[in-house]
Amino acid sequence: MSSTSHSSLSSSGSTSSKHKVAIVGSGNWGSAIARIAGHNATRHSDTFEREVQMYVYEEDHKGRPLSQVINETHENPKYLPGCRLPDNVVANPSVVDAVKDATMLVFVLPHQFIMSTCRELKGKVNPKAHAISMIKGVEVKNGDINIFADVIEEALGITCSALSGANIANEVAQDKFSETTIGHREGTKGKQNAELFFKLFDTPTFKVGIIEDVAGVSLCGALKNVVAIAAGFTDGLGWGDNAKAAVMRIGLLEMKRFSEEFFKGIKPETFTETSAGVADLITTCMGGRNRKCAEAFVKTGKPFDQLEKELLNGQKLQGTETAREVHEFLAARGKVDDYPLFKAVYSIAYEGIDAHDLTSRL
Amino acid sequence: MSSTSHSSLSSSGSTSSKHKVAIVGSGNWGSAIARIAGHNATRHSDTFEREVQMYVYEEDHKGRPLSQVINETHENPKYLPGCRLPDNVVANPSVVDAVKDATMLVFVLPHQFIMSTCRELKGKVNPKAHAISMIKGVEVKNGDINIFADVIEEALGITCSALSGANIANEVAQDKFSETTIGHREGTKGKQNAELFFKLFDTPTFKVGIIEDVAGVSLCGALKNVVAIAAGFTDGLGWGDNAKAAVMRIGLLEMKRFSEEFFKGIKPETFTETSAGVADLITTCMGGRNRKCAEAFVKTGKPFDQLEKELLNGQKLQGTETAREVHEFLAARGKVDDYPLFKAVYSIAYEGIDAHDLTSRL
Repeated sequence: MSSTSHSSLSSSGSTSSKHKVAIVGSGNWGSAIARIAGHNATRHSDTFEREVQMYVYEEDHKGRPLSQVINETHENPKYLPGCRLPDNVVANPSVVDAVKDATMLVFVLPHQFIMSTCRELKGKVNPKAHAISMIKGVEVKNGDINIFADVIEEALGITCSALSGANIANEVAQDKFSETTIGHREGTKGKQNAELFFKLFDTPTFKVGIIEDVAGVSLCGALKNVVAIAAGFTDGLGWGDNAKAAVMRIGLLEMKRFSEEFFKGIKPETFTETSAGVADLITTCMGGRNRKCAEAFVKTGKPFDQLEKELLNGQKLQGTETAREVHEFLAARGKVDDYPLFKAVYSIAYEGIDAHDLTSRL
Repeated sequence: MSSTSHSSLSSSGSTSSKHKVAIVGSGNWGSAIARIAGHNATRHSDTFEREVQMYVYEEDHKGRPLSQVINETHENPKYLPGCRLPDNVVANPSVVDAVKDATMLVFVLPHQFIMSTCRELKGKVNPKAHAISMIKGVEVKNGDINIFADVIEEALGITCSALSGANIANEVAQDKFSETTIGHREGTKGKQNAELFFKLFDTPTFKVGIIEDVAGVSLCGALKNVVAIAAGFTDGLGWGDNAKAAVMRIGLLEMKRFSEEFFKGIKPETFTETSAGVADLITTCMGGRNRKCAEAFVKTGKPFDQLEKELLNGQKLQGTETAREVHEFLAARGKVDDYPLFKAVYSIAYEGIDAHDLTSRL
């Protein structure tokens, strides 16, 4: 990897040739990735400034502000308990202050907060900053589906890559071996962007792959959850390993075909060969809340909104949500029947079709 | 699919336009596939003769010949207990008699019996017969690796396709949803061959895909077991879902690269998109004896030959066997280091390298 470095303003206002990193978000995944970025900023002190800012949405933790607790204990006891963050990761309750002078921005917020955060940051980020989106899901607006890297790029006017992969946060935080994938934009700037983030994140136990396909990497992270619902149905039905593997294979190819049909610059191997594609699909269909709730849906006969209350504390399930969004998108274009697995998931989850009909519809 | 049909000699010696099917083998998978072939021979009575011969290696079953028990009870109580075979599947203890006048031969024997069976059949099969190999593994001879479809084709002088997929036999026998893949030869004859076998096997719960890649389909079935050993190591080490998915992804790409480097006519999508490729890899790395023994190897510290005795009744494990064969093949060509996952599996299984070193070698 190249050690591309750009001039940036240091926090003291003087010019520096080192990159200043800000992590925008501090949930389970945000804290895990801040830990890696913190370690690598120290390891590659030729490229990165030592201090890594981490924006923390301020909330109370046992009577004290969470950001203060993190800075005193070097741990995020609310979202990543038991995992020590390096001292150079500094929690900051002001997002505007956290990104001040930053040349590298890592967006790792829950998707419902991304628009409001971008509005707050507009005009306040370094126009030459590099950004990366680790946000799960896609934005659906006016019947269109947008990836968050595009949303961020448009809102802030800066280049944005995407990172996704078979990355259960708690495993990454324990340095258990993982791979991940950065999808970047075309051209020199896109590649430089990816190489910088490669250097910020790659470690011997968190191996970063790079592919020129920001949309593919982003869509994998959203669409896999729909396939995980189908895989969970097969678990609930007790159909065995052959059926589950078949559903995963068919789902992977629908994910790829959907992305190729409706997005530009998709590389098929993003789906079939990268950690963001086939590997993340495997982890998501084996473990994960989407699979689990879909299994319970079949076994208990309870509707998904009730299971969300019982199993997820009322949080919305991404897979059924994305299945609905994809269905509406396809319906508006008269293409529902071209994606039989997506259609079957929607019909079973929302239209009362018997889950036993899953494979007869493929 | 076309309903291609060829002239053949019927068992009475008169010419018939229908295909006569013989299944060479009657183990767990052989019996499951004979059941499907029997049903489809009846369903497509325009294409197939009603009777399906099934060669049974004669052995004693509770004081009676197994073939006789199968023909009286329409069940193979030894290898597929509890599953009714259709009445038109006829067990035959003579392989020469079973294939007499057959125009379609299904080879589904344990690989150690294939050479002796081919020798016995030489000159005794219809020279226009179509064959398909469902034999797991590869033949290693004089430092070379051959697929069994080639071995059969050369020994008997007839066209041979290959069938492989995410096909746990007991699940297929219960009509649980499965997919499978036929890999066929180039040209019209290869395609006709595949279409005939498609018609013989495809059902609403056993969906057959076709690809022009007999070597790729065969190699998937052999090499996946090496990857399953690596996946089992990660289970034994308790490394979690990220690491296991990463090892599966890396393994899938090594399988593809190995096949592309050393075999002709390989299609990459056989590995990344078919049931024989990615789907079978998933089932094999999730369940299966290779995964299980590799997990036990790490957890107990016992050598594989001891685990084979304890867990497999002394049967040889395919994954470690194939890892050794692939290693010798690569060593003879100075290419061991080009396949780090295959190398790591070999080193851990045979050279006493600590399984913890698995991913540091990738």
